[in-house]
Amino acid sequence: MLFKVEMIVKLPIDMPKSVADEIKSREKIYSQELQSSGKWRHIWRIAGSYANISIFDVESNAELHDILSALPLYSYMDIRVDALCRHPSSIRDNDK
Amino acid sequence: MLFKVEMIVKLPIDMPKSVADEIKSREKIYSQELQSSGKWRHIWRIAGSYANISIFDVESNAELHDILSALPLYSYMDIRVDALCRHPSSIRDNDK
Amino acid sequence: MLFKVEMIVKLPIDMPKSVADEIKSREKIYSQELQSSGKWRHIWRIAGSYANISIFDVESNAELHDILSALPLYSYMDIRVDALCRHPSSIRDNDK
Amino acid sequence: MLFKVEMIVKLPIDMPKSVADEIKSREKIYSQELQSSGKWRHIWRIAGSYANISIFDVESNAELHDILSALPLYSYMDIRVDALCRHPSSIRDNDK
Amino acid sequence: MLFKVEMIVKLPIDMPKSVADEIKSREKIYSQELQSSGKWRHIWRIAGSYANISIFDVESNAELHDILSALPLYSYMDIRVDALCRHPSSIRDNDK
Amino acid sequence: MLFKVEMIVKLPIDMPKSVADEIKSREKIYSQELQSSGKWRHIWRIAGSYANISIFDVESNAELHDILSALPLYSYMDIRVDALCRHPSSIRDNDK
Amino acid sequence: MLFKVEMIVKLPIDMPKSVADEIKSREKIYSQELQSSGKWRHIWRIAGSYANISIFDVESNAELHDILSALPLYSYMDIRVDALCRHPSSIRDNDK
Amino acid sequence: MLFKVEMIVKLPIDMPKSVADEIKSREKIYSQELQSSGKWRHIWRIAGSYANISIFDVESNAELHDILSALPLYSYMDIRVDALCRHPSSIRDNDK
Amino acid sequence: MLFKVEMIVKLPIDMPKSVADEIKSREKIYSQELQSSGKWRHIWRIAGSYANISIFDVESNAELHDILSALPLYSYMDIRVDALCRHPSSIRDNDK
Amino acid sequence: MLFKVEMIVKLPIDMPKSVADEIKSREKIYSQELQSSGKWRHIWRIAGSYANISIFDVESNAELHDILSALPLYSYMDIRVDALCRHPSSIRDNDK
Repeated sequence: MLFKVEMIVKLPIDMPKSVADEIKSREKIYSQELQSSGKWRHIWRIAGSYANISIFDVESNAELHDILSALPLYSYMDIRVDALCRHPSSIRDNDK
Repeated sequence: MLFKVEMIVKLPIDMPKSVADEIKSREKIYSQELQSSGKWRHIWRIAGSYANISIFDVESNAELHDILSALPLYSYMDIRVDALCRHPSSIRDNDK
Repeated sequence: MLFKVEMIVKLPIDMPKSVADEIKSREKIYSQELQSSGKWRHIWRIAGSYANISIFDVESNAELHDILSALPLYSYMDIRVDALCRHPSSIRDNDK
Repeated sequence: MLFKVEMIVKLPIDMPKSVADEIKSREKIYSQELQSSGKWRHIWRIAGSYANISIFDVESNAELHDILSALPLYSYMDIRVDALCRHPSSIRDNDK
Repeated sequence: MLFKVEMIVKLPIDMPKSVADEIKSREKIYSQELQSSGKWRHIWRIAGSYANISIFDVESNAELHDILSALPLYSYMDIRVDALCRHPSSIRDNDK
Repeated sequence: MLFKVEMIVKLPIDMPKSVADEIKSREKIYSQELQSSGKWRHIWRIAGSYANISIFDVESNAELHDILSALPLYSYMDIRVDALCRHPSSIRDNDK
Repeated sequence: MLFKVEMIVKLPIDMPKSVADEIKSREKIYSQELQSSGKWRHIWRIAGSYANISIFDVESNAELHDILSALPLYSYMDIRVDALCRHPSSIRDNDK
Repeated sequence: MLFKVEMIVKLPIDMPKSVADEIKSREKIYSQELQSSGKWRHIWRIAGSYANISIFDVESNAELHDILSALPLYSYMDIRVDALCRHPSSIRDNDK
Repeated sequence: MLFKVEMIVKLPIDMPKSVADEIKSREKIYSQELQSSGKWRHIWRIAGSYANISIFDVESNAELHDILSALPLYSYMDIRVDALCRHPSSIRDNDK
Repeated sequence: MLFKVEMIVKLPIDMPKSVADEIKSREKIYSQELQSSGKWRHIWRIAGSYANISIFDVESNAELHDILSALPLYSYMDIRVDALCRHPSSIRDNDK
């Protein structure tokens, strides 16, 4: 089941660079594990913003929430979720 | 080069069903040709809305505009475009 | 899997009362069937508005979209969907 | 008398975890007491957000305000209230 | 129990004056009956707008909805409801 | 001359309780004096919010501004003013 | 007593030019009479918009409403009113 | 050439009163010099807000920007500019 | 003196194609004359929208308004104007 | 390929002037290098705001993002990007 998730990151201006780097490093590892597992199907940067647009493929709303709320950057993000479903014009089998 | 495009369709309430069906039929053919060519990479329905979220892979802003403005439903759509680029955490080679 | 859905109905001012009544009558039957089946778990009127807040319990985003897009009033509604999940403080077993 | 209440929680980024945990712990106890009493009829998490959607069943606007303003997290919340009433299509006796 | 209700009236530009006058005439009678009964406690015009701000004193959300949805101008209004309760600084006994 | 005023209070999260209590105490005295004088005709709490809706009866815009800007909580408030006038349907003599 | 009023005019696309011209002609006469009397102190066009920003000098909210609601273009306008008062830095005696 | 400028002032809650008073004092002198020169044609307080609506009469956009960006309170303001021009109904010679 | 102008075009859905084509043809001629004269310095299409972003170089607000209000598509446009001035970092002599 | 970029700068109120000056100095050098190279085609100040409107000419979305995210002021900016393309009415060869 697919969801589009937009995440806008807002780090405090006065967060020390070392702290920010450490959180971002964990965020990257976490994201790549979920991408490898197929749960986090796509992630793109929005040009000009510290933000991304992602596609998740999960079993349920609960699994989506568990994944998002465990993001190392979760406390610093504005997140918007849209539930997706197969478009009748789609020709891709797995864009269900 | 990737773009996220959200399209919300607003057909006039009094458009005859036959007219609407004919436009939608052309829209579907047009969309599927572009999907086959790889230009229209993804299309998903937003659950509960007559709307879609799509990913386009084009050579330029101009090509994107030409594709969108030739949509049979173009006059009936609100369209929002976001330029995308590769996310540093992405592990998918073609999510450039 | 639960979703909160807000539906605001906007009938054309010049729709004949008989037409409106017929659509509303089908809407009521459709809604009550889905309530009986357990898919449409709750429906409340928002005081002072031609609008409702509903809770749906469905298998997937696709099922939610199929139910909503088949509403007799679908063409006349603005619909907003929020994916829900169990709250850690909830004491109700089935508010999963 | 039913009300839909949406609560978005915004804890200060620099609140010590022990302080946050203590407030959340009191919030949970308070919420569960009100759920047991029947006043706080439903609470759901919005997927991807530190937010909930709740249904309250109270005697009056005043009782609703007293309950909400006594929430341990009240100072950290944006709250939106909608007065509900029975929907003419509802088949549930107590969704009055 | 008190509610603040803001009503903005939007009559179709092409509604014949006689039709508009007849609806407004019924609206006035209806409003004055409810004012006399004490249900519609206050009504003020917002300067420069075809809109009013009103205070209702009703037994329940349902009674408020029944009153509002029976307004002769109801189909032509945008309505916003806020539930009120006694302010701790109030010195007026009946602004409960 | 009547004005509707909505005041939303936003105290800093880290304001000491004793400071907040002292300001609120002065606010209450100030409000009640103005209520007694007839200038501050009504004040209601908006259910679920640290906010009020008030009706002022003043000689001029200037008097309204002088009253509002002298509120002990003035620096912590978002304030919205609407000029009111008698509604043609009103039956209350003093809702001028 | 001064008020700033912004008026945005939205004529129906299909209004015959002769009808529009006749209304605008009456609007101009009406506006100039009020300017001559001193009630309508200033009127400026907003560059690029069919809109104006005006300053009115009236005895009361009621007088302002009576003036605005009698505008020949009133049914075709969105109007926003702000109550003004003398600024402590002003050096102009009559910008009271 | 005329411009309408709305300025909303937002001083930090914790700014010492002596600092705020010193800035406001310079702001007043600066404003009154520009009023005397005819550049700052009008300034009014918006009732109930720490905000003003002003009319500037300048040679160019650049002169307007130079004047505004030199305001002692500039760093603490949200500013909105609208370019004005003579209204065809205006009877005042200098409201060009 | 430079202004940025955004124009969004909204033609009525039922405007005959021949009428639309005739207006667009006049619009193009009018625009190109102004571009040739140097008044309309730039015009770009916004990708995916029936809209443009333009830069005008005019003597005054009044000249800008005269140019915009004479656009053949003026009645069908939403227009937003921003006054520009030279940026201190600019290296282009004529981006005054 | 052209993009319009709006940048609004929000420096923390308590940033020391020397720190702000150093960042702005680097920003200016960086901007002027990109202007010289032709990548940053235009930059204008928005009158009355600490903000600019710029036109970039880049090879791709990725190049645009790399340029913007390397701005010395990037952490202090709200940035909005619009993809542009040649307007059919344009007479300037390089406004592609």
